[in-house]
Amino acid sequence: DIGLLDADIHGPNIPKMLGIESEQVTGSGMGMIPVEVFPNLKVISMAFFIGDRDNPVVWRGPLKHNALSQFLGEVQWGNLDFLFVDLPPGTGDEPLSVAHLIKNVDGSIIVTTPQDVALLDSRKSVNFSRMLNIPVIGIVENMSGLLCPHCHKEIPLFKIGGGEKAAGDLKVPFLGKIPIDPEIVLNCDNGMPFVMSYPDSQAAKAFRDISARVKTYVGFQEIERKMEKEKFPY
Amino acid sequence: DIGLLDADIHGPNIPKMLGIESEQVTGSGMGMIPVEVFPNLKVISMAFFIGDRDNPVVWRGPLKHNALSQFLGEVQWGNLDFLFVDLPPGTGDEPLSVAHLIKNVDGSIIVTTPQDVALLDSRKSVNFSRMLNIPVIGIVENMSGLLCPHCHKEIPLFKIGGGEKAAGDLKVPFLGKIPIDPEIVLNCDNGMPFVMSYPDSQAAKAFRDISARVKTYVGFQEIERKMEKEKFPY
Repeated sequence: DIGLLDADIHGPNIPKMLGIESEQVTGSGMGMIPVEVFPNLKVISMAFFIGDRDNPVVWRGPLKHNALSQFLGEVQWGNLDFLFVDLPPGTGDEPLSVAHLIKNVDGSIIVTTPQDVALLDSRKSVNFSRMLNIPVIGIVENMSGLLCPHCHKEIPLFKIGGGEKAAGDLKVPFLGKIPIDPEIVLNCDNGMPFVMSYPDSQAAKAFRDISARVKTYVGFQEIERKMEKEKFPY
Repeated sequence: DIGLLDADIHGPNIPKMLGIESEQVTGSGMGMIPVEVFPNLKVISMAFFIGDRDNPVVWRGPLKHNALSQFLGEVQWGNLDFLFVDLPPGTGDEPLSVAHLIKNVDGSIIVTTPQDVALLDSRKSVNFSRMLNIPVIGIVENMSGLLCPHCHKEIPLFKIGGGEKAAGDLKVPFLGKIPIDPEIVLNCDNGMPFVMSYPDSQAAKAFRDISARVKTYVGFQEIERKMEKEKFPY
């Protein structure tokens, strides 16, 4: 099974993107029960604990640390093959707390857009991961150009290739480029996983290629074989 | 004069976007001297204090609070007409610190992209501002569609109109829409202010219209008249 922990305490958007925004987390004597999206995908997010979704979470670091500690320690995740933690940008409280709470994190994936201004931040994240002794699995270049839906010519909106160049500079693997597809935006807003709605699109192919590269990361292949037997839907 | 405080401690990108990345802040017995971009624009950013720009700032909230406190209290800002504070996304330590350190903030401007997933966060920021008794000057809708540079047809990349609708829902002023222009990306990466490089573009016009609307905000007109006498370059 896969666990997905939305560690963006102030901007918890994963439930909306997965169409489970109205779900609630139930508790038992054994701890909180995460929300199931598919029989093998369980999600925890701050969004499940905010009454009105327009209410801000006005918390400084220590309260966020406590929430993340509970999300990791007091949730009945069950027997997970992987736990993915989706972090907000930056090198502050949330990633520090996760790094301290989970011993032996397998690795980090840094997602960036290709322009220099964005790379200024994501290059810092690569070094942050190294400082915490978390291996960098690689860099993903997101929003890497788009095809005009009218004339089908390429528009290098946020430039192209910056993530790949940064990976070379910093000597970490490059996992792939995901082009901008307006359908991704619509699917996220409608709570539909894009890779299931548009499996034949260029962007969905990019997602699958990146996924395949992550799986080649040391130690993941064996778990993958086990999961294939369990018929993982992707 | 105008002061610009880059309050994004982990991702301080304003110096790069203004072409002053290699400047250093000097000190005197009276405190730090901010970097001058124009004779009437002074900037302070964490970027001026990081040796290698790829080095992450691995700080939790209390250290960030101290840095922001020094940026506000120990910098020789001089006699400013306005101090703009550019905040990272979210409702955590940085905005809380700034709200507590500056008494009587005139107001907040919330910048959002138009898709629902982004609005989920920016609507929280509106309510956060209200909770801290900071008046909301208004919402700006950024990345609001783009014109294909090849066929010149409109592409509603991150949808269009979401920021305007949120302003109506939340009963705060709507300040305007800024279309995506690939030249903005290039100008930011090259340290050139876009409004000076492409003053006749649709996006530059949108920036000026928004600026004019902000100036109509209570009390700003008088300062504006004083500044016009001093020949502000924009």
